[in-house]
Amino acid sequence: MRTLNVALGDRAYPIHIGRGLLDRADLVLPHLKTRRVAIVTNDVVGPLYLHRLCSALEAAGVQVSAVSLPDGEAHKDWATLNRIFDVLLAERCERSTTLIALGGGVVGDMGGFAAACYQRGMPFIQIPTTLLAQVDSSVGGKTAINHPLGKNMIGAFYQPRLVLADIETLNTLPGRELSAGLAEVIKYGLIRDAEFLGWLEGNLERLVAREPDALAHAIERSCRNKAEVVAADETERGERALLNLGHTFGHAIETGLGYGEWLHGEAVAAGTMMAVELSRRLGWLSEVDVARVAALFERAGLPVYGPKLGVERYLDLMAHDKKVEAGRLRLILLRSLGQGVIHADASPAEISKAIEARCR
Amino acid sequence: MRTLNVALGDRAYPIHIGRGLLDRADLVLPHLKTRRVAIVTNDVVGPLYLHRLCSALEAAGVQVSAVSLPDGEAHKDWATLNRIFDVLLAERCERSTTLIALGGGVVGDMGGFAAACYQRGMPFIQIPTTLLAQVDSSVGGKTAINHPLGKNMIGAFYQPRLVLADIETLNTLPGRELSAGLAEVIKYGLIRDAEFLGWLEGNLERLVAREPDALAHAIERSCRNKAEVVAADETERGERALLNLGHTFGHAIETGLGYGEWLHGEAVAAGTMMAVELSRRLGWLSEVDVARVAALFERAGLPVYGPKLGVERYLDLMAHDKKVEAGRLRLILLRSLGQGVIHADASPAEISKAIEARCR
Ligand SMILES: NC(=O)c1ccc[n+]([C@@H]2O[C@H](COP(=O)([O-])OP(=O)(O)OC[C@H]3O[C@@H](n4cnc5c(N)ncnc54)[C@H](O)[C@@H]3O)[C@@H](O)[C@H]2O)c1
Ligand SMILES: NC(=O)c1ccc[n+]([C@@H]2O[C@H](COP(=O)([O-])OP(=O)(O)OC[C@H]3O[C@@H](n4cnc5c(N)ncnc54)[C@H](O)[C@@H]3O)[C@@H](O)[C@H]2O)c1
Ligand SMILES: [Zn+2]
Ligand SMILES: [Zn+2]
Repeated sequence: MRTLNVALGDRAYPIHIGRGLLDRADLVLPHLKTRRVAIVTNDVVGPLYLHRLCSALEAAGVQVSAVSLPDGEAHKDWATLNRIFDVLLAERCERSTTLIALGGGVVGDMGGFAAACYQRGMPFIQIPTTLLAQVDSSVGGKTAINHPLGKNMIGAFYQPRLVLADIETLNTLPGRELSAGLAEVIKYGLIRDAEFLGWLEGNLERLVAREPDALAHAIERSCRNKAEVVAADETERGERALLNLGHTFGHAIETGLGYGEWLHGEAVAAGTMMAVELSRRLGWLSEVDVARVAALFERAGLPVYGPKLGVERYLDLMAHDKKVEAGRLRLILLRSLGQGVIHADASPAEISKAIEARCR
Repeated sequence: MRTLNVALGDRAYPIHIGRGLLDRADLVLPHLKTRRVAIVTNDVVGPLYLHRLCSALEAAGVQVSAVSLPDGEAHKDWATLNRIFDVLLAERCERSTTLIALGGGVVGDMGGFAAACYQRGMPFIQIPTTLLAQVDSSVGGKTAINHPLGKNMIGAFYQPRLVLADIETLNTLPGRELSAGLAEVIKYGLIRDAEFLGWLEGNLERLVAREPDALAHAIERSCRNKAEVVAADETERGERALLNLGHTFGHAIETGLGYGEWLHGEAVAAGTMMAVELSRRLGWLSEVDVARVAALFERAGLPVYGPKLGVERYLDLMAHDKKVEAGRLRLILLRSLGQGVIHADASPAEISKAIEARCR
């Protein structure tokens, strides 16, 4: 087991990464306020892992309530959130009861938001079971639900007391979901960790093959990168923006195709290629750099071209992204491989050419 | 105009108290992030005061959106909260837009919770228009909505950037609502401000007559007391509990009669008399003290006896209150007039006698 610490002052918390952590009630106990937890999971993850977690906790004398949500982003809404509150209240959970989210990013975001709001805040623990959740959504304290008029529009910054990333849970994850998670892993290398990028180039097939040691290393390194960024900028003003590499282009792809068509990580991969191409046009990256990044995504099973939506449509969709400030598109680009920058001066013409070059 | 400061470190904020503050856009402007606000009000307060506030802000170059909620505690729920989000999104309000709550405690609690959640937190300003909201709910950062299984169960701690208490808005407030607010005013004197209690004994009729100078003094002194308690104990662990004087008994009355039958402040007044009676039985207060407190409530137009629900029912309802810890009822009692204490050692028999004595 590897452990790293998210340095957030009096709200600092540990992330444990390893095999079989679902059975390790001993890791959970020190973080409970009382021996009472409510586990939030979903109809896919519950049947696979809920029983093990419950048994471990109950054997340690913890009283457990559980609620299983319908699977999928389509249910990341108020009605589903309310099901959590219904159970918490019906089973008389208190403000001191700990909510544990067991699942991917959807369960983590909703469980975290429920914990933030229930009686104005109850203790919260994340047990992420997708690669994306282990390297990204479980770290940083963002929680949210969707609104019909916008994704993640209603939420809170709310930090967990503990994150347990059990690598073995990834064995049941569909390959496409694993690949989507790798897009975010590669992102950390690109924006701030050239050494890790080198390691990924040497070990990517080991990740795709789900070799535990390789996964543990990649997850730890990813979490470390995200934790450092978040600790420096908890509520997303400055450096945290770098985490959005490829995301403004990617959101255009997700919205343009209709949500759910491409996975988020797939859109981020193709979107990152657009950012990389634009960085090359600004003279910051070489052709060889572009090819290196594309090769990495391809080995991860990810798309390196966006769908042909038409450049105008891309620009239009991007203009509606949250990252627009005073009409100027703030893009995350690369000064070099391993060094992301916020750039608000790219002209629409330059942006168009980069999109054009990376669609097909 | 009087101003006091709520000392919460980097989230400190001013409370301005005075006449005609609704027109004072100059007081609001320094606290806006951008010249864009969304006003949340309700169908009773909106027709009375929305136009004036809008005009003042618009004249100062601020772009204003507004949403009016149905009136009443019955609408303090998710469906109504969602109407706020609908408008914020439909009118493209940003994370930097400031939400202004214009109304009583219901509007303030919902507006504040909406501000806490919209895009994970937007700036928030309170313009309370009931006495209860001016002396209690607008100060302290508690926000919430109700759940069918419990009042104020879903919410957040979220501080405003500014509170504007315009005393003139109280001129349209129904007398019964004014009295209910006075219950909380008297409470501050009882739990921690003997000097203020003396002032109240000398000036209560001036408050009932809505004399501006008297109101301004009472509101300032109340806010100062609440602000001091909150600053010392932002998330309600220790001293903040004193603010619940009369509330555990009061909640039993509210629930026992069905919510809405008695106003909250009315139930608090009768509940405080039970706490006062119990304090006397413990030897902390004299008969004369009890009579002094009762006289004050009566002059404020408030009940000093609870309804005859039966002692068993009272105890039962109180046992379901949040303030139970490990089966022991934590009551707020008075060591002397002006000095509240948390007491968890009163026997059910003693509590019963106190209830019995103050029902009729
Ligand atoms: N909070 C943040 O900072 C943050 C960051 C990135 C993404 N997100 C959010 O995360 C969500 C996406 O997360 P995700 O990619 O984990 O999606 P997800 O939670 O929908 O999980 C993907 C699919 O895998 C299933 N699954 C989960 N674990 C499994 C396992 N071990 N074995 C088999 N199947 C499993 C899920 O049930 C689901 O069908 C989005 O809602 C996004 O907004 C949040
Ligand atoms: N956040 C906190 O710390 C806190 C503390 C105490 C109470 N509360 C909450 O506050 C709420 C009660 O607040 P309230 O007593 O202000 O009730 P309220 O908001 O329902 O207002 C009472 C009535 O007066 C009307 N009204 C408001 N201002 C008026 C005016 N100037 N002229 C004429 N009518 C006016 C309202 O529309 C309503 O009909 C409850 O929901 C309670 O839970 C919160
Ligand atoms: Zn992402
Ligand atoms: Zn009260």
